[in-house]
Amino acid sequence: MLPAPVSPTRRILMGPGPSDVPHRVLAALASPTVGHLDPYFLQIMDELQTMLRQVFCTQNKLTLAVSGTGSAGMETTVVNLIESGDKMVVCVNGVFGGRMADVARRAGAEVFLLERPYGEIFDAAEIEAALKKHRPKVVGIVNAETSTGAHQPVEDIAKLCHAHGALILVDCVTSLGGVPLEVDKWELDAVYSGTQKCLSCPPGLAPVTFSDRAVAAIDARKTKVQSWYLDMQMVKDYWGSSRAYHHTAPINMNYSLHEALRLVLEEGLPARFARHHRNHIALRDGLAAMGIQYAVPETHRLPMLNAVKIPAGVDDVAVRKQLLTEFGIEIGGGLGPWKGQVWRIGLMGSTSSASNVLLFLAALEKCLLDKGANVPAGAGVAAANASYRAG
Amino acid sequence: MLPAPVSPTRRILMGPGPSDVPHRVLAALASPTVGHLDPYFLQIMDELQTMLRQVFCTQNKLTLAVSGTGSAGMETTVVNLIESGDKMVVCVNGVFGGRMADVARRAGAEVFLLERPYGEIFDAAEIEAALKKHRPKVVGIVNAETSTGAHQPVEDIAKLCHAHGALILVDCVTSLGGVPLEVDKWELDAVYSGTQKCLSCPPGLAPVTFSDRAVAAIDARKTKVQSWYLDMQMVKDYWGSSRAYHHTAPINMNYSLHEALRLVLEEGLPARFARHHRNHIALRDGLAAMGIQYAVPETHRLPMLNAVKIPAGVDDVAVRKQLLTEFGIEIGGGLGPWKGQVWRIGLMGSTSSASNVLLFLAALEKCLLDKGANVPAGAGVAAANASYRAG
Repeated sequence: MLPAPVSPTRRILMGPGPSDVPHRVLAALASPTVGHLDPYFLQIMDELQTMLRQVFCTQNKLTLAVSGTGSAGMETTVVNLIESGDKMVVCVNGVFGGRMADVARRAGAEVFLLERPYGEIFDAAEIEAALKKHRPKVVGIVNAETSTGAHQPVEDIAKLCHAHGALILVDCVTSLGGVPLEVDKWELDAVYSGTQKCLSCPPGLAPVTFSDRAVAAIDARKTKVQSWYLDMQMVKDYWGSSRAYHHTAPINMNYSLHEALRLVLEEGLPARFARHHRNHIALRDGLAAMGIQYAVPETHRLPMLNAVKIPAGVDDVAVRKQLLTEFGIEIGGGLGPWKGQVWRIGLMGSTSSASNVLLFLAALEKCLLDKGANVPAGAGVAAANASYRAG
Repeated sequence: MLPAPVSPTRRILMGPGPSDVPHRVLAALASPTVGHLDPYFLQIMDELQTMLRQVFCTQNKLTLAVSGTGSAGMETTVVNLIESGDKMVVCVNGVFGGRMADVARRAGAEVFLLERPYGEIFDAAEIEAALKKHRPKVVGIVNAETSTGAHQPVEDIAKLCHAHGALILVDCVTSLGGVPLEVDKWELDAVYSGTQKCLSCPPGLAPVTFSDRAVAAIDARKTKVQSWYLDMQMVKDYWGSSRAYHHTAPINMNYSLHEALRLVLEEGLPARFARHHRNHIALRDGLAAMGIQYAVPETHRLPMLNAVKIPAGVDDVAVRKQLLTEFGIEIGGGLGPWKGQVWRIGLMGSTSSASNVLLFLAALEKCLLDKGANVPAGAGVAAANASYRAG
C-alpha cells in the first residue's frame, strides 16, 4: 500500500516562516532539472549572485546561496570564521542567539555569552565592554530574533567591533527583504539568511555574504574548516570562475530563489520595506483594539514577526488549532520561556498583505469568542481598516 | 535590469547525476508550501520514512532525509559516528572515497587509508587485514563509486567489520534504487544516499539510515557532534514522535522525494533493478560495436554509471559540447586521474530507458563522425537493438 500523492491543503502561512510562496516561485521550482555544470545553470548561479548582492546591499564577491536551510547558513558563517580556541562573543536574547553559541562551541570557540531577557535588545556600550574585556575574534549577534520579534540595530556595533579588531557575524534570517539591511554601509562581515521568510521562497537555501575582511580571516586559517560541506574555500570555487565541482547544487531550489529574488527586485526594496511596515502597523492597531499586547516594546519591533501576549485564560494550542483547521491560517507558538505565553504572527514577504491582516483579525476574533474570551466585536478589523485608510 | 525568468532548455541527463526528473515529481515539488510543523507535513515525513525503509530494505528506526545534498549525507554519517581521536579505515578507489577521508579527518578521526587505483574494487581479505592491524571504530567504503562506475560488494565486508568490533559506513549515493541494496540483510550500519541519482528526484536531500548498532554508538558519544545542523540526536527528535523543532525542513524538496519514492515503489525494486540492468547491457553492446571500451572490468560494473574510455584522438570536451548543444544530452567527463580519459554515461532512474540508449548511441555516432573519428555507421544502434530483441 503506497501513501496517497502529495496534496497539501492551501494554508495562509502567518507563522515565523515559511511564508506564503507565490505561484511564480513554485512554477520556477518545477522547471526541468538540468545538470549542476550545465552552462544554463552556471548562468543562473551568476544571476543569483548578482541579485543576492542587490538584496544584501553589498559588493561582496563571496555572496551565494548555501545548499541548506537558514541554520546551515548560521553554521557556515561560524565554522568558516572560527578555528579551535578562537574567542567569540555571542549575544543571546532568544533561541537563535542560543543556537549560535551552541554552534560556535561545537566549532571549538571559546564562547563568551552576553545575555538579555527575551524581547530585549543589546546596546552598543555593553558590546564595547565585552570587546574590551574578551578581545574576541568574532562577535555574533541576531539582527532579527525570530523567537521574539526583537529588532537589533547592528550598524554601531559593527563599527565598534572593527575598532576593536573583531569581526561581526549577523543573523539576518528574518530581516532580509523585510527591513533595511545594508551589509556594506553597516560594515557587516558575515551575514546569513534563509529563503523562507521575507524572500517568500520555500525553505532549503541559505543566502550568505562575507566581507573582504571576513574572506581574509578565512584565508588566514591554519586549519581546515571542520565542515567539508560548508567549507567556503571550496564552495566559492564552484560559484566562482573556476567552476570546480564541489557538491551537486540543489538545482531546482536555486531556480526558485532566482524567481523569488526577481520578485523582490521588481517590487523594489524601499517599497517592500514600506509594505511590511504598513501591514505591521495595521495589525498592531487591530490587535490593540482587541486588547492584545505586544511582547516587545514598540521601539524595537520587527514588522514581519509580531510576538503578542496570549490573553489571560485563553488556550494557546486550541486557538492555533482552530485558526489552522477552520481558516487554514498558521501562526506560531512561543519558544523557550515564551512557550504558551506568546503567539508569533508572521507578516513575511508575500504573506504581508492587507487581506491577510484583515482576515487574521476577523478569524482571531471568532476563535477567541468561541473560546469564551471577552473581545469587542468587530473592533480589530475596524481599527485595522482605519489604520489603512489613514494611509 | 532584472535577469530573465528561469526557463531551462530540456535536457536528457545522462551524466553522473542529476538524472531526469519525471513530471510527477516536479509537480509534487511545486505543491503549495505548508509549515514544517503542520500536521499535513508531519504525515508526509512519516510516509517518507516508511518508504525510505522499504527502498533501503531496512527496519531501522533512524531512517530519514537529511536537509542537504548527498555530500551532506556523507558528512552526517561520519560526524555522528566519529569523535576526535577515533580510528577510521577509509577505502579509496575514486573521488568519493577520497572525499570521505577528508570529511573524517575534519571530524578528528585518525584515518587509515586503504587505496586501490580508479576502477578497481577492494576484496574482503585486505579489509580484514586492515581491521586486524588498525582496530578501527568505523570502516568507510563506497558501494557505488560515481567517479569510476565500480560496484563494490559490501555484504562480506560488513560481516568482517562486525566480527572485529567495527561499524561499517557505506556510500550508496548512486546505488540506491538502481541495484540491490539490503541494509538489514547485509548488516550495514550507516548508509547515505542522494536524491538525484536512481531516485530521479532533484538534488537537495540525502536519505540516510542508521542501524541500532550505529545508534548505540551515537548514544555512547562523550562529546557533541561537531555539526549542529547534522546532529542526529536532535534531527531524530524532529522526525520522531516528539516533533521537537530543530531546523525548518526543506518542505517542497520533501514533497518531491515523497513522489519519487512512490514512483520507485510503484515500479517495484526488482523490476527497477532489472530495467537498469537491461539498458546497461544494451548500451554496453552498442558501445562495443562502436569500438568503445569500458574503463571498469565487467565483473564489477555499475549499470547506472558507465565509465568508458574516450577513443584515441577524440576531443573530450568537443564531443560532450556537441552532444549537449545539438541533442540536449548531458554526459559526464572524467574526474581526478581520469579527467580527459573517460566519459561517464549515466543511466539512472527515469533516464534508464531504451529510448535514451538508442538516441545516445545514434547521437554519439554523429558527433564522432563529425570529429573525424572512425566509427562503423549504424553499428551501435544495431547492436543495442539486437540486444533488446534478444531480451
